[in-house]
Amino acid sequence: MSGNVLGERELIRRISEILGGVENDDCVVIDAGERYLVATTDMLHRKTDFPDIMNPWQMGWMAVAVNLSDIAAMGAKPAGVLIAAGLPPQADLYFIDELFSGLGDCAAYYGTRIIGGDTDSHQELTITGTALGFVEKDLVLRRRGARVGDLLCSTGALGGAGGGLWAWQQGVESDFITRLLEPEPRLAEGRALAQSRAVTAMMDNSDGLALSLSDLAEVSRVGFVVQEEALPVAAGLVEMVGQEKAQEMVMSAGGDFELVFTVRPEGLEAAQRACGLTVIGEVVEEGIWMEKGGERRRVEAKGYEHKIGGMD
Amino acid sequence: MSGNVLGERELIRRISEILGGVENDDCVVIDAGERYLVATTDMLHRKTDFPDIMNPWQMGWMAVAVNLSDIAAMGAKPAGVLIAAGLPPQADLYFIDELFSGLGDCAAYYGTRIIGGDTDSHQELTITGTALGFVEKDLVLRRRGARVGDLLCSTGALGGAGGGLWAWQQGVESDFITRLLEPEPRLAEGRALAQSRAVTAMMDNSDGLALSLSDLAEVSRVGFVVQEEALPVAAGLVEMVGQEKAQEMVMSAGGDFELVFTVRPEGLEAAQRACGLTVIGEVVEEGIWMEKGGERRRVEAKGYEHKIGGMD
Repeated sequence: MSGNVLGERELIRRISEILGGVENDDCVVIDAGERYLVATTDMLHRKTDFPDIMNPWQMGWMAVAVNLSDIAAMGAKPAGVLIAAGLPPQADLYFIDELFSGLGDCAAYYGTRIIGGDTDSHQELTITGTALGFVEKDLVLRRRGARVGDLLCSTGALGGAGGGLWAWQQGVESDFITRLLEPEPRLAEGRALAQSRAVTAMMDNSDGLALSLSDLAEVSRVGFVVQEEALPVAAGLVEMVGQEKAQEMVMSAGGDFELVFTVRPEGLEAAQRACGLTVIGEVVEEGIWMEKGGERRRVEAKGYEHKIGGMD
Repeated sequence: MSGNVLGERELIRRISEILGGVENDDCVVIDAGERYLVATTDMLHRKTDFPDIMNPWQMGWMAVAVNLSDIAAMGAKPAGVLIAAGLPPQADLYFIDELFSGLGDCAAYYGTRIIGGDTDSHQELTITGTALGFVEKDLVLRRRGARVGDLLCSTGALGGAGGGLWAWQQGVESDFITRLLEPEPRLAEGRALAQSRAVTAMMDNSDGLALSLSDLAEVSRVGFVVQEEALPVAAGLVEMVGQEKAQEMVMSAGGDFELVFTVRPEGLEAAQRACGLTVIGEVVEEGIWMEKGGERRRVEAKGYEHKIGGMD
């Protein structure tokens, strides 16, 4: 982080102070009677959030997917998505139709709908999605709750979206590019993990595994040891970019939208029945460590972080 | 509307078709068990939505106020506001502090909070607010429901925000400018009107009275006759801009954030006990009419409407 800008996390801390505290979870949690309402909002811009090669249908898909991933991370079931879209003057009807089809298709794929929104004109395409969901009060999963001795787990494979970004930038054809452009949030998995009652803390890894671990550690006041050789590296990634770069993508590249979570040891079988998962490490007292061949080294919380605001 | 752009309402119709129908209310309504959850989202941009003279605190206030006005229009009680903010690189800490103080102050003034959100960097300041609220199922108010013979009513005074815009553009000092820059949504009034059980349809007049009546008429499949001399013109407006311009501001200028609603005739006393209101006309079979001295003329649905999308 350079000296004259606030990083996203530092800015959020400052804003949180002004607003009297904002809970650090993938969604906010609101009492809705028998259940909790969970809600999340995410603003995406053409230049900073959508790779150049993305078509408008994929932009729509992405804008819904990033929000549904936050619903998944709470163990909740989606109840609808609101979309505020700032459309550029050069957007023609093809663009508008494709964009909104992508929005609707992603919602439908995950059993929900675009239920409302707002349209506005804007020089640069800007889409703010807000996803709503419900979860039983005794099933909600948060970033806090991990305890020393819990197992650290991840759904799916890691590094694929990072590989897609690399392949696109290098002009290499690769299925990873589709992974990057059409992410698939883990809603069924999040829900099943919540129902397993074996999970103690959860979040998505949308900004990369290392940053997710840093956030989980901070909120749960614990540390993690990651077993390097246990990491579920996306199949074919090492072959494409080499061992070292693949490792870096697994830890620091954003865009995978897998779930990272902790499981109480006696609950591992229940969690495994809920969904495919990999045990990648365990919860320790403090620090974030990578272990290989019995040796531990500290991991920096490096990942995808927007820089915001000038402060000269 | 010129030939090569889609107006906001036309665009919304097209999007609604793609998405399989979106209910035309100030908020979407979601079953939350005992009550309804209502939700609304609104995207605001520095250039198109915030007058140049606005200070950052007022931008924050405005971004929350426009969303809370939609909560008010459903008869609901706010349960929290999410804010996605795209902050320009030149935003210094003073700007950020003031902006977020304005956001928080408006929410607190109406008994709610900024409960979460997202920050991003963006060339032009962009704020998307999403307000959530709850309302008892038998009290929710919608745009549909007005019946022939119902009385047409408005809270507060009309045209003040239009007067503020005029005064600012003319370089005239006026309290109306504050009305424009610091709107006060009618949350207590909306809630009390819902509890009166006398109201049959409601919406806010944020885009001007004429457009609100056009929307209410379309959704309720009715018409309106407005008594010109009954309109609650903001005090001092005629003196500042003259009779004709004042009339135009009352009908077509956005920004007042009053509630426009219909009351069953036998419920008028109950509605009057709920809050200060003015009966401005009545519900008829079709058309939107202005009546003065026994003569009726048709009103065009003219108001503040964004133009979006190119279609050559």
